[in-house]
Amino acid sequence: MSKFKIAIVGATGAVGQELIKVLEARNVPISELRPLASARSAGTMVTFNGEPIEVLELTPDSFEGIDYALFSAGGSISKEFCPHAVKAGAVCIDNTSHYRMDPEVPLVVPEVNPEAAKRHKGIIANPNCSTAQMVVALKPIYDAVGIERLVISTYQAVSGAGSDAMHELEEQSRSLLTGGELKPKVFPHPIAFNAIPQIDVFLDNGYTKEEIKMVTETQKIMEDDRIQVTATCVRIPVFIGHSEAINITTCEKISADKVRELMVAAPGVDLRDNPAKSEYPLARDYSGKDDVGIGRIREDISQANGIEMWCVGDNLRKGAALNAVQILELFVL
Amino acid sequence: MSKFKIAIVGATGAVGQELIKVLEARNVPISELRPLASARSAGTMVTFNGEPIEVLELTPDSFEGIDYALFSAGGSISKEFCPHAVKAGAVCIDNTSHYRMDPEVPLVVPEVNPEAAKRHKGIIANPNCSTAQMVVALKPIYDAVGIERLVISTYQAVSGAGSDAMHELEEQSRSLLTGGELKPKVFPHPIAFNAIPQIDVFLDNGYTKEEIKMVTETQKIMEDDRIQVTATCVRIPVFIGHSEAINITTCEKISADKVRELMVAAPGVDLRDNPAKSEYPLARDYSGKDDVGIGRIREDISQANGIEMWCVGDNLRKGAALNAVQILELFVL
Repeated sequence: MSKFKIAIVGATGAVGQELIKVLEARNVPISELRPLASARSAGTMVTFNGEPIEVLELTPDSFEGIDYALFSAGGSISKEFCPHAVKAGAVCIDNTSHYRMDPEVPLVVPEVNPEAAKRHKGIIANPNCSTAQMVVALKPIYDAVGIERLVISTYQAVSGAGSDAMHELEEQSRSLLTGGELKPKVFPHPIAFNAIPQIDVFLDNGYTKEEIKMVTETQKIMEDDRIQVTATCVRIPVFIGHSEAINITTCEKISADKVRELMVAAPGVDLRDNPAKSEYPLARDYSGKDDVGIGRIREDISQANGIEMWCVGDNLRKGAALNAVQILELFVL
Repeated sequence: MSKFKIAIVGATGAVGQELIKVLEARNVPISELRPLASARSAGTMVTFNGEPIEVLELTPDSFEGIDYALFSAGGSISKEFCPHAVKAGAVCIDNTSHYRMDPEVPLVVPEVNPEAAKRHKGIIANPNCSTAQMVVALKPIYDAVGIERLVISTYQAVSGAGSDAMHELEEQSRSLLTGGELKPKVFPHPIAFNAIPQIDVFLDNGYTKEEIKMVTETQKIMEDDRIQVTATCVRIPVFIGHSEAINITTCEKISADKVRELMVAAPGVDLRDNPAKSEYPLARDYSGKDDVGIGRIREDISQANGIEMWCVGDNLRKGAALNAVQILELFVL
């Protein structure tokens, strides 16, 4: 089996660290792992398969000899450095939002549209975390009966905003429990014991960028612009694991039992749906899991053709690192 | 002004304590406050207007001379003791779910259907917390353009499950932050840094009782069974304050600006909707507030006639104690 040279841009961040763990766990055939980061983090060490590797400073020349470059250091870094990587002959798998809606760049969830990856011109985009976990479960329903409209409410973990955000939740919670009050830095409001209905910035239509990502990315990955989508994205005090309440209007009627059957057969989905025993997916149980958890499946009593369900995924895995590595695997396995 | 004799059943519980605070704060004309509780709590003291009052044991004879009895000690207590209170000549205002869907019992939110209260036959029901705060904001929209369908996702505080639940969140959070793990007692799963998509028990159709309460109680309070409703009710690690993402299909089109105008004029509603400054209602800011906070108002991009909004209320106030006292005020002011 061939082995590949892989660069990780943003190797010291929350997703970068998770990328290294996932590459190890899935035994991706790697001859060289090249961790790259800003000058500030260069010189620190990361561990890969038990070996310490020095983090190098990201420069335009960082990609010589690299086969695949996994980017996870923010949109502006991807914008600046993906072209350098492509020029050096690498294929970029980009975790940021920068290229996602670029018509030249495929946006890929391997369980949903693997064939799109093959059409790349040097860059493949990895979707937003909340979209990635959702479409894995929607695809089999779409294929069976079609999807007309989605109303989504999210319950998103702080790790989606990076390591500093996890630290902020921890320190704020600790402070509040001892009668103190820590000012927010990462989030616009205190996140400890609160629910903040804003993720990313606001657009003119009153939606946030995160909410519109769920609309446009879902349509692009499902390759169907007729799917109508609305979302409310909310940050809650959870460290890892996004949860989503998904209300689906299907084109034809489908029973809850049939949806359960589809979920059992769906790649990347773990059906956990036993109300009698209070069994359904929970954020804390899915931290560190690759599969997306689906439960609370029921026929929507408010419309003729509708399904309600609850979807939980590790936002650092399926929502980021795992999906990126799965895209890589489409080429290297 | 006449003064009234008021009994509080469940005076030592989370809602009972809040009832006493709200009665004080709103200067309800009271000549006698009679706190009642189980034998276990009898003999303890509560404070009303600076005076200590002994909690008496609830018995069938507890209601002699009482004008209004506010019940908040669980459905089985209401079932057993409301009839005794009515027999003694008292009007019962019941916070539990026991009588809510009884066709003989009005279910009242004073901003929405005050006239229904006058039709009582001795018992008036107070709605479920998540329904009460929502209908206050829905009524003006319903009156303006009609409502066809609602898709609701809730972010509910632990205090809705009582004082023990608040203690459980506090102790579990503390334990987790110091590397421990406390087993859940009140909730079916750990609530600290988690999201639990189950409130109350499951019904045969896969919905929980809490979710179905939002359906049937909304229809009853709005006095329109044609309003289609679906809900996903979720417990999150917040102490006080329920948040709700509400997706509304209106009968006629309405603009976001017009909804904002309606909210400014609506009794019991506090419009807090300034995305440019990251202003929207937050659970922690609305703890202790009487008004329901509305924000994130936007035209739903997924359907022709739709509005999305975010609704936050103090579940112990508008969701319970305040609404009960407002019902009382319909008679005593």
